[in-house]
Amino acid sequence: MTEIIDSETNFSSISIAEFFYRNRQMAGFGNPTQAVYSTVRELVENSLDACEDARRFPEIKIDISQESVDTITITVSDNGTGVPYEFVPEAFGKVLYGSKYGIRQKRGTFGLGVTMAILYGQLTTGCPVTIKTRTDTSEAKSFKIFIDIERNLPIVDDEHQIDQSEPGTTVSLSLKGAIKRAQQRILEYLRLTSLATPHTRMQLTINQNVVYWYERIVTKLPDSPILLKPHPRAADIEFLRRLISKSKNRSLQSFLIESFQQVGERNATRFLNFLALDKSRKVSTLTREEVYRISNALRKYDGFSTPNGRCLSPIGHDAFTTSVAFHHPDSEISYVSRGPSEWDGNPFIIEGVIALNTDCEQPDNPNLYRFANKVPLLYDASEDVLTKVLHKVNWSRYGIGNNLSAIIYVNLCSTRVPYKAAGKQSISANAKIEDEAVALFRSLGRSVSKIAKRVAKSKRNMKRIREFSKHFRTIAKFGAELAEFPHVPETAQLVRTLFEVEIDET
Amino acid sequence: MTEIIDSETNFSSISIAEFFYRNRQMAGFGNPTQAVYSTVRELVENSLDACEDARRFPEIKIDISQESVDTITITVSDNGTGVPYEFVPEAFGKVLYGSKYGIRQKRGTFGLGVTMAILYGQLTTGCPVTIKTRTDTSEAKSFKIFIDIERNLPIVDDEHQIDQSEPGTTVSLSLKGAIKRAQQRILEYLRLTSLATPHTRMQLTINQNVVYWYERIVTKLPDSPILLKPHPRAADIEFLRRLISKSKNRSLQSFLIESFQQVGERNATRFLNFLALDKSRKVSTLTREEVYRISNALRKYDGFSTPNGRCLSPIGHDAFTTSVAFHHPDSEISYVSRGPSEWDGNPFIIEGVIALNTDCEQPDNPNLYRFANKVPLLYDASEDVLTKVLHKVNWSRYGIGNNLSAIIYVNLCSTRVPYKAAGKQSISANAKIEDEAVALFRSLGRSVSKIAKRVAKSKRNMKRIREFSKHFRTIAKFGAELAEFPHVPETAQLVRTLFEVEIDET
Repeated sequence: MTEIIDSETNFSSISIAEFFYRNRQMAGFGNPTQAVYSTVRELVENSLDACEDARRFPEIKIDISQESVDTITITVSDNGTGVPYEFVPEAFGKVLYGSKYGIRQKRGTFGLGVTMAILYGQLTTGCPVTIKTRTDTSEAKSFKIFIDIERNLPIVDDEHQIDQSEPGTTVSLSLKGAIKRAQQRILEYLRLTSLATPHTRMQLTINQNVVYWYERIVTKLPDSPILLKPHPRAADIEFLRRLISKSKNRSLQSFLIESFQQVGERNATRFLNFLALDKSRKVSTLTREEVYRISNALRKYDGFSTPNGRCLSPIGHDAFTTSVAFHHPDSEISYVSRGPSEWDGNPFIIEGVIALNTDCEQPDNPNLYRFANKVPLLYDASEDVLTKVLHKVNWSRYGIGNNLSAIIYVNLCSTRVPYKAAGKQSISANAKIEDEAVALFRSLGRSVSKIAKRVAKSKRNMKRIREFSKHFRTIAKFGAELAEFPHVPETAQLVRTLFEVEIDET
Repeated sequence: MTEIIDSETNFSSISIAEFFYRNRQMAGFGNPTQAVYSTVRELVENSLDACEDARRFPEIKIDISQESVDTITITVSDNGTGVPYEFVPEAFGKVLYGSKYGIRQKRGTFGLGVTMAILYGQLTTGCPVTIKTRTDTSEAKSFKIFIDIERNLPIVDDEHQIDQSEPGTTVSLSLKGAIKRAQQRILEYLRLTSLATPHTRMQLTINQNVVYWYERIVTKLPDSPILLKPHPRAADIEFLRRLISKSKNRSLQSFLIESFQQVGERNATRFLNFLALDKSRKVSTLTREEVYRISNALRKYDGFSTPNGRCLSPIGHDAFTTSVAFHHPDSEISYVSRGPSEWDGNPFIIEGVIALNTDCEQPDNPNLYRFANKVPLLYDASEDVLTKVLHKVNWSRYGIGNNLSAIIYVNLCSTRVPYKAAGKQSISANAKIEDEAVALFRSLGRSVSKIAKRVAKSKRNMKRIREFSKHFRTIAKFGAELAEFPHVPETAQLVRTLFEVEIDET
């Protein structure tokens, strides 16, 4: 018997928490295995951001404990800034609430990931999240928080003072899931996170037993990304309108100079002349049509320099090569960086390291590991713009795929990474990023090409020396016979002295 | 000179409109080409939903006009239900506002697509959307609407009565983009939409000139999906809590029977006995822990039947095969449907048609065309669960890829399709859907296997008849010589009569 309910058409609105509750697969919470992985990832990223804000070497502890057949508890603690009390409930109990959305590179940019993990935990176990946090200036407190999904608001279930001597945050949440199925991905994620943030120490325990320990490989903190003014190319009509509404009494010229980077008196004047607008005009008097014209022009005008890259924090030459060398001790390593460039006014840098194993033979394209803002991307590789670009490059031209195997690590840094979905697993097609990625891969290829030639040359040289050394031995033997010496003299020492190599004489 | 702005950490909240404004690539608006395609798609889907609600044969007109070098206007009109005045501003000017989110198959389920198109248009041209609508019971009106992105609210710029004799809606919006680059995708989209909704007439004009006309192929309206109660497996703790808060004074047993489909007196009693809960207990007295236990049990208990499929509206055997036969007139066609089944309590049906061209040789897997709720999915095929499943099937076992080429059209119908991203281009990995898709593909394979055998058999038979007919001619020739007949008698007529086939005698 089928009971049919009211079928009248009706309209209503839903909250963003409700949207992601209904479509949790979009945020990386489609099934228990993926959810366990995403929870670890989101918590670790938050911790890394908090440590970078605090300018401390991150010390991150991750514990995954099986509570019952299908329930686990994930706990991640860090030595970061801590979260000021007044922000705790909303930071953890409200979707799309986050630290100021500034023009500066961060891992977490939506205020979505951790709240999604909390929402998923609450949905599958009925339990609240526990947050223990202490800032530099406050005592430590513990919170238990639920999310009111219909209204997208936090419900504080418990709040009390605790003992905790150092600043930092510990987040602990229970969710449905099994460790075993997610473990492989989590280990891969942590290995690659350690590779991309080699100044970090991470410890993974499972059921409180240490299973992995990722040591600090470099002892220098990366430069801190700095909040900058937006680039004029970012001024779509909406953004421009907002900027204008904050600076109503300014003249057009001073508005442009004050609002944007890469705009000074000279190019502001030139730009306004080009648009035939009076530079002393008050911005509050601009019509909608004029705002549209200015926005359009700002995004097309070629008189502004490329964006300042100090809002970005790439891994950098030294850390990236040290780290890859640590993971591939017998490989030839080369680093290339491109940018800062911009897409829709969002600055980005793309950097990569190629590791070449000269002993190994492999007939394929290089293996690609993708990172965005130093976060490893493990899923959905085939639709990622970086993967697509990799397949466009003719690698055999650089000697790869013939007798050399290669691994490429690529990191895209941007104040805004155009992820294909809220789960942040792959980067969508984007002409500017594509162009830079092609150039990056070719540069990496060219750098490899030299090494490949060097390897080929050194192989040729070794062959010659070997030949030479054989002749030496023959000459020594004949000489000994002619001189009626009882022993053939040793020639290996001579070869060692002449060519500075050790030759196997058999 | 770089000016650095305030770098203090601060927390704030953003609206859902703001989220998708910043991450528009997630909703299918990552670049102008994709945006033009997505706009057409979202408007056509809304129109199809409105016509299905009205139980009318859809008549949809799409016009794309180039306004200037990089600006186009897209206008889509339908003969659907129209939108009641009071809902117009929010339905078009507020993200995540939509017709009642019921358990019933619809194309548009988020209230996101069209508002994203409007938002994108507003961002790139500064123009509002124009909506002209008339319902069965009201006069026609025209609206011009902007979206207040920061607050996710509509701004009505203009509203006035107009002349329009028939119910229906026309939406017109301008956006940055060029027709040419998007045209191919749009044509493909309309061709496949026509294939999946063969009771629809669509007309595409470009700059007001008719370029394509998609005729109605079937003259029967599909059954209307019916709003049903949820299946008990959909009762996650959040949903169960909400249902309970609406039925506080009910007893547990009557609550279960009233709230869910497939629950009657007998299995409700058995279920509550199994949980050791008193069936006359008031639901308002349940503790959080008990609600969690009930939710868990509802999702695991195997005493509930599979969901009722009347909330779904598949294309169906007749329409689907007629339509595919229309597009592939020389092919063998076979239809298979599986379900209703459910994932997380969401009912789904998966149906497919295989078209086999027996003349053609092709060594590959079948070509796959994917649909979700009759909407063609054109992007991101490689990460789609249906594509992945297709590649798992050993097609050569069914004779495909040897000497037969095949095309497969698959439509997944569900009250909730687990799209990977808000742009609704691919379906995420899901164990239940995967299992049903594997079974569907194998059934399609088996159905083809029979045809392949029939084709092989008929080829063998033709060969025999040809042999036979040759002997006939020889016998006739000898007979004529023996009987001293001046002409050899005609044997083709005899072959025609005996085997009912025409034989080429050369």
